[in-house]
Order: sequence, then structure tokens, then C-alpha cells
Amino acid sequence: MTLGDLSFYVAMAGTVAFAVSAVLSVAERKVDLFAAIVLGTITAVGGGTVRDMILDVPVFWAQELSYIWVAVVASVAAFVAYRFFARRFIHALFLYVDGLAIALFGIQATGKVWDLGFGIPVAPAMLGVITAIGGGLIRDVLAQRQTLLMSRELYAVPVLIGCILFTLILAYAPEYRLEGSIFCIGLIFAIRAAAIHWSLQVPEWAMMGSKRQ
Amino acid sequence: MTLGDLSFYVAMAGTVAFAVSAVLSVAERKVDLFAAIVLGTITAVGGGTVRDMILDVPVFWAQELSYIWVAVVASVAAFVAYRFFARRFIHALFLYVDGLAIALFGIQATGKVWDLGFGIPVAPAMLGVITAIGGGLIRDVLAQRQTLLMSRELYAVPVLIGCILFTLILAYAPEYRLEGSIFCIGLIFAIRAAAIHWSLQVPEWAMMGSKRQ
Amino acid sequence: MTLGDLSFYVAMAGTVAFAVSAVLSVAERKVDLFAAIVLGTITAVGGGTVRDMILDVPVFWAQELSYIWVAVVASVAAFVAYRFFARRFIHALFLYVDGLAIALFGIQATGKVWDLGFGIPVAPAMLGVITAIGGGLIRDVLAQRQTLLMSRELYAVPVLIGCILFTLILAYAPEYRLEGSIFCIGLIFAIRAAAIHWSLQVPEWAMMGSKRQ
Repeated sequence: MTLGDLSFYVAMAGTVAFAVSAVLSVAERKVDLFAAIVLGTITAVGGGTVRDMILDVPVFWAQELSYIWVAVVASVAAFVAYRFFARRFIHALFLYVDGLAIALFGIQATGKVWDLGFGIPVAPAMLGVITAIGGGLIRDVLAQRQTLLMSRELYAVPVLIGCILFTLILAYAPEYRLEGSIFCIGLIFAIRAAAIHWSLQVPEWAMMGSKRQ
Repeated sequence: MTLGDLSFYVAMAGTVAFAVSAVLSVAERKVDLFAAIVLGTITAVGGGTVRDMILDVPVFWAQELSYIWVAVVASVAAFVAYRFFARRFIHALFLYVDGLAIALFGIQATGKVWDLGFGIPVAPAMLGVITAIGGGLIRDVLAQRQTLLMSRELYAVPVLIGCILFTLILAYAPEYRLEGSIFCIGLIFAIRAAAIHWSLQVPEWAMMGSKRQ
Repeated sequence: MTLGDLSFYVAMAGTVAFAVSAVLSVAERKVDLFAAIVLGTITAVGGGTVRDMILDVPVFWAQELSYIWVAVVASVAAFVAYRFFARRFIHALFLYVDGLAIALFGIQATGKVWDLGFGIPVAPAMLGVITAIGGGLIRDVLAQRQTLLMSRELYAVPVLIGCILFTLILAYAPEYRLEGSIFCIGLIFAIRAAAIHWSLQVPEWAMMGSKRQ
């Protein structure tokens, strides 16, 4: 198995995790099968679609339809067998795979945008974050849930940190691109996993708000 | 009158139906004229605009501004004369024309995406559904109504069925494209009309949800 | 200082105003620093990004990253020093600068779309309005606030009036383009400033709604 293969299989696992966690997250809202497929698929491919539309390049899934098929099948599976997926252990497993997915997709996107020379040095990290969390944002808006921007969960910030670090590596140490990408994916995942495991939240000093609330 | 003419007039009727039903659906929210025009026009052209942005082709209304003019005029008319449009008979008429519009726009889009060879075999039906319901989704998000994904109304599923069937015809019996497109439009409309007439909902077995709710 | 320089500095001041007013508008929701930056930046560049995606031209900030930097820095500043920015006088100042920004961005966009010959005569004014208010709409959707379409504040209508007038000037008196653009920016700002100062609202006759509410 080559590194390219590995990257593909991890991306597919990430797609499954995005779709499954999307369906689980709307389970309590009594959606139907169609809505589950739409929300699962949008969560899985929405962020990368927005990125490619901003980059003005062909959307990634048009050439590689596996992303769509896998997302649809995973959404249907999560819908049909949600009692299985909702079990504590399985649910936790998918939370961690979702954490790996945002790490992978964020870093991959940062590299893609960097290679296109688009909006360097800001856009690669910015579009990395959009790729990782954009699908989830669209899902929350369409499903009328609280968007992650309004929650205190530590979800997007690790991606931002990793993507900025990877941008620095691409700028100042491009010869360590491969090692750097693996390290940044590991770093994002480690922070996210710690946040899941210890229920870490954004600390109070990084919050803003009137005293009224 | 040629078939192309007929298709154009049906598309204009569909545009009117989209805009009018959008304005009627936000009437109880006390919107102003500007918001009525914006929501009516977005509902009418929003789905096709998202489709063309994903396809990376020029948006359809840039070359054929009638879509915009007709949507704006219909929105203003629905705003000014909403008591007329809100009458039981007229409102029902527009519901049915809206049903014809989602059928027509969905099948037209499926054919367009197929001809572009974009993401075959999945994308044509997928973008057909996005074209048909995308504008309504954006309207619901901007007007802060419950999106149709969260409702049990049988609205998008008939479009999906028709677009998948039309994709199969394009793949396996392209010589029957014209007859097939008319049949699929008729099928979508028939299911949708039945859903309107008998207030059909998504059946319980196709729903998901915790017992808590 | 040339006119181009002036236009650039006004655009930067407008970007600051958009970002600061965005962060102030979500201050009571207890957002974190990351969300403040995301919402501030989306408000500042979101409308123009949607416009460029519809036009199918490169997004404006990819070539001129100052828009992003300025938006990020302004968002952080508003987050850190929001007690300062929330003071009555400072807040009012930013409301007026925001009014100047929607005027400037709307008219600039109308001219840009006109020069591209895109969807004349409708699209220039339409995309002018989208450029001016699109970022704010996306912010409200992501922050789950009431969108401005659902409010009675006189915000988008002055932009629409100015952009239509500027379109007429471009069509019938192109030799007065410069004077016309300054006049239209002034007109939009004047109406908006009057609306802020006297708390003007959309008049009752331009509202719609059932008597139930």
C-alpha cells in the first residue's frame, strides 16, 4: 500500500465519520431518510465544495465520486442502524474518527491551496478550516441546530492551529512537507481527542459577552 | 409554438409559482416589500444558481434575465395582492404549479448536468434535486422558517425519484430522452399532487428519532 | 493621494466597520475569540465573495489580502476591547462608518459588474446589494440572529435605491460616472444616516402580514 492509498483510505474513513456523526447529531430531531442522506452528504463534502468554489477549481467529488457514494451509504447505514451507532462506545469511536477527519481534511486542503499559490500566506490555513468545518456549519444551519461557532466546544480551533503551523512549515521548511503534514494532523487530532476525552471547553478568558447573560 | 417555446413558458410559469409561493409562505412574518422581492427571487433562481456555481458554468439567469424580471414582478404582485393569492383556491393552484415547477426544473437540470458529463452517474440526479429545492432551502434559512428537510411534507423525495429514473433513461435508453423527460416530469408532479391533495406525509417507518421526543 | 488611494482607504475603513459591527452584534451571545474572528471576517468579505462566485471571477481578496488581514485584526480588536467599542459614542461612530461601507461596496460592485457586461441591466444593482448586505446575512445565519430581511430596520433599501440610480447613470450618462458614483454613495449614506439618527423604520404600508400576528 502506497502513501497515496493510505491517504485515500483515511479520507474515506473521514467521509464515513462525517456522514455518520451528522446523522447521529440530528437523530433526536426525527428526520426522515431523505433528510438524513442530504445532511450526511452535505456534512461530508460541503466544506470541500465551498473551498473549491472559492478557489474556482472543479469540485473534488466530480472526479472522484467515491466521496458521494461513501457518504450516501454511510448516511443510510447510520439512519437504519442508528441504535447501533448511538451506543456509547461506537458513538465515541466516531467522535474520534471525526476528529481525525477534520485534521486530515484541514491539512490536505491547506496543502492544496498552497500548491495553487492562492492567497498566500493567509488563504491556505483559512480554507483549511473552511474545508474541515464548513460541511458541519451548513448541516447545522439546514437542520436548525446551534452552529458550532456558537458553542464552547473545542472543535475548530485545533484545526486552525494545525493549519497555521503547516503553513509555516510549507513556507520555511518545505523539505519537511510530508513529516510536517503528518505531525500537524497528529497535533490537531491530539488536541481534539483531549477535548473529547476530558470534555475540554474554550476557557472563560477567551469568551466575550455582556454580564446580562 | 415549438417545444423549446413550450419549455420556456413552463419555466416562466414555474418561476412565477416559486416566487409567489415564497412570498405567501413568509406573509405571516410581516416582511417588507424589499424582503419579499429578495426572498421571492432567491427562491425562484437560488437552486439553479447553486447548481451552476458547483458546475462552474455561467449562471443561467445572466444570459436570460427574464428569470429575474419575472421573479421580481411575481414577488411584487404577490406582496401587493396577497389577499387575492392567499385565497384557498388560488393558493392551492400555486401549490400545484409549484409542484410542476420542481418537476420541470429538476428534470431539466438532470439533463443539463448529464450533457456536461459532470459527475456521472451520481451528480445529475443530485444537482437536479438541488436545483429544484435549493432556492426554497435558502429562503427558509434567511426567513428563519423550519427548512423542508426538517418537515415531514413529501416535497423533495418525488423529485429525487424522478431524477434518478431520468438518469437511468439517459444511461440505458437515450433514444427516449424526450418521452422520458415528459414522463419523469409527469411522475414527479403526480406524486407531488397526490401529496398535496391527500396531505401525504413521509411514512413513520422512514422516520428516525429518539423516544425522548 | 490619488483617487485610487482614497478609494482603497475608504474600503479598508469599511472593512474595519463591517468586522467591528459584526463582533459587537454578537457580543451578547458569549462567543469565543475564534467565532468572533470568523464572524467578523465573513461579514467583511462574505458579500463580495458571493458576488465573485456568481460572476465566476477570482475572489477579490485572493489578490489583495489586506481585506482579510484588516478584517481579522479589527475582529480581534473588537473582541479584546469590546467595552471600548461598545461605548455609546464609539458604537454610533461605527454604525455610521458601516453605513458608508455598504454605500461604497454597493456602488463599487455595481460598477464592477457593469464593466464585466454581466446581466445588464438587472445584475449590477442586484449584485451591488448582495455585496453590501451578503456578509451580514451570512453572519446572522451562522450566529442564529434575526436576519436583516426579517427586521424593519432601513438597511438594504437605501443601497438598492443608490445602485439602481447608479445603473441609470452608467446607462444614460456614462460621462458622469465618477460624479455619479460619489453622488450615489452620498445618497445611500445620507438615507442610512438619517435612518440611524432618527431610528427610521420601513413604513407600515410597505409591510405585509396577516392580522393574526
